[in-house]
Amino acid sequence: MRVSDHRVPPTLIVGTGLIGSSIGLSLRQAGTPVWLSDRNRDAVVAAMQMGAGEDAANGGLDPGLVVVAVPPSGVVDAVLGALRDFPDATVCDVASSKAAIVANVNGAAGSSAARFIGTHPMAGSEVSGPLGARSDLFVDRRWVITPDPRTGEEAIGNARALAEACGSVVIELSAAAHDHAVALTSHLPQVVASALAARLAEAPIGDVIASGQGLRDTTRIADSDPELWADILCTNGKQVAPLLDDLIRDLAEVRDEIGGPVPSRMGRGRLIRLLRRGNEGRSRLPDKHGGAAAQYGRVTVFVADQPGELARLFADAGAAHVNIEDVRIEHSIGRARALVELAVQPDIAGTLREVLGAGGWSVSVD
Amino acid sequence: MRVSDHRVPPTLIVGTGLIGSSIGLSLRQAGTPVWLSDRNRDAVVAAMQMGAGEDAANGGLDPGLVVVAVPPSGVVDAVLGALRDFPDATVCDVASSKAAIVANVNGAAGSSAARFIGTHPMAGSEVSGPLGARSDLFVDRRWVITPDPRTGEEAIGNARALAEACGSVVIELSAAAHDHAVALTSHLPQVVASALAARLAEAPIGDVIASGQGLRDTTRIADSDPELWADILCTNGKQVAPLLDDLIRDLAEVRDEIGGPVPSRMGRGRLIRLLRRGNEGRSRLPDKHGGAAAQYGRVTVFVADQPGELARLFADAGAAHVNIEDVRIEHSIGRARALVELAVQPDIAGTLREVLGAGGWSVSVD
Repeated sequence: MRVSDHRVPPTLIVGTGLIGSSIGLSLRQAGTPVWLSDRNRDAVVAAMQMGAGEDAANGGLDPGLVVVAVPPSGVVDAVLGALRDFPDATVCDVASSKAAIVANVNGAAGSSAARFIGTHPMAGSEVSGPLGARSDLFVDRRWVITPDPRTGEEAIGNARALAEACGSVVIELSAAAHDHAVALTSHLPQVVASALAARLAEAPIGDVIASGQGLRDTTRIADSDPELWADILCTNGKQVAPLLDDLIRDLAEVRDEIGGPVPSRMGRGRLIRLLRRGNEGRSRLPDKHGGAAAQYGRVTVFVADQPGELARLFADAGAAHVNIEDVRIEHSIGRARALVELAVQPDIAGTLREVLGAGGWSVSVD
Repeated sequence: MRVSDHRVPPTLIVGTGLIGSSIGLSLRQAGTPVWLSDRNRDAVVAAMQMGAGEDAANGGLDPGLVVVAVPPSGVVDAVLGALRDFPDATVCDVASSKAAIVANVNGAAGSSAARFIGTHPMAGSEVSGPLGARSDLFVDRRWVITPDPRTGEEAIGNARALAEACGSVVIELSAAAHDHAVALTSHLPQVVASALAARLAEAPIGDVIASGQGLRDTTRIADSDPELWADILCTNGKQVAPLLDDLIRDLAEVRDEIGGPVPSRMGRGRLIRLLRRGNEGRSRLPDKHGGAAAQYGRVTVFVADQPGELARLFADAGAAHVNIEDVRIEHSIGRARALVELAVQPDIAGTLREVLGAGGWSVSVD
């Protein structure tokens, strides 16, 4: 990973929501002067009070970099305005889809297009607005930059420096390649999770109460901000639509197989094929080392649902020099204890079970 | 919760996969005699070696309860066979859908139907087969029983005793109410997760590598057993099909809005409405107390990816008398540390942050 020695110039942040304010906090922590602006005065005041920068309305602006962090539908106008207002500055955006924005800016900006670069920090939260901002939101996350042949070296250097100052790993992609990848891994899952969770809004509450961890995981991202996501889906619709077509075709096939009077043997075969393709797709997801998903060993422990119990559990696990790769906590309705599932490297699971058992924990038997 | 003093009679388990073998382990631990049978001899031998019971092929069978735990498509035949072979025993099944099985058994069993009761222990695992079996698989989980007017008191008592001996919370529902609820909360999410994960099987690997925690959560249950789930979906197809119709209609609407030349203002409005319904649906999911989902405070900590670090973190959190409600660990690609997100009651988040910060942890700033 190349880390540039390029310093981030004094920066104007346009749009002080979660992403803009978090960038301000990161840059201020790195010592970069930051000005903040937003149509919504309350958002500027909140971001200032958190320490994300100075109020741009007080004047004295002389930015070498303008970060446009407004909602996707306003990005192109804000970028063109910034290129006009600050004729020596680099201007970048941070929106979740890139091709339409880059094409529209390049089409309207003339020679100023050399000062524009599209970027996408791949971090976020179900929380939105400046009060959710964190100076470490981008640490260890990927930050995609999408220069094209018109982009100048100065703009590329400033964008790299920005991402690195925020602690991110910089990845350079074409705007089209970026949009194709996030349509699959981010935008399609959002539509699917929201449409699935929408069924819960309509259902009798007695049905919803039967739900467990599977449904909770499958719908988690349906908590996201509707206005923001409507914008994202509209700006990357061309990439998401064919994926939705494929998905709808599969779902309609399942519906036809299971909705008829008696599911046929052929129909069952088609169902199995789809479920197997799901298994295959899952096996291609990267693990933390960037390879295929690891098969962890899993140790389940019963833990009283009160302060200090998890601490005691992890202290005992730590004494065995076991590295916990993942933790899942499942609370039971009406019981004062929780099931804690610890994922570890498979060859260590036996040891961990023994150690915890010896320490008096109620560990799963297998 | 009524806990009966009814003891589980000596039990024959037909089908020694994950569920059957786990029931055997639970009953043996409670001191109940258990016999095991399965078409697949290897499965019986594996279950016996794990201590789930004796081999039914050795004779001497005199069960007062027969638990049919074969794949869904074989349940009705196995139940009818058991009612014939053991004319004094209660026979129950443990399949994930109930109405079709209950109707078919009642239609064919004559007066023996009084000895049959449908049940569904709501526990499972992405792991299948006897080697995944655990004596605690059902502890604190719900176990639905679906008696109908033909079901005798003896059968109801035996089914309750079975579920309680396995540590479960017994819930009595009509077969139709059960099937309606699990279609929404279990079967529909399975189809959706599998169809979404299937897109990953077809995609260029360069696109898949961009995926993060959201996609991982949304597709987790797509790891499940295809043959088993094809059976489940076929037997509860009548309940799942109309939910799939509603889902497909929403997805097709999104596809039409975002796939056209320029998304209209009306189209964006419809998108926002769907995403908002997703928010609403999520807010109806039960939390551990059976109420609506709690809004937890979240504290994010950077932790070195090595043994003992989580132990140290939880020990420090425990010292603050904070009850951790949930934990999420996110590993970064190519970095030797992880982001650990601790969910706590909202009013405690500030305290936890201070305590961990004072303890030298790199805690999120907000």
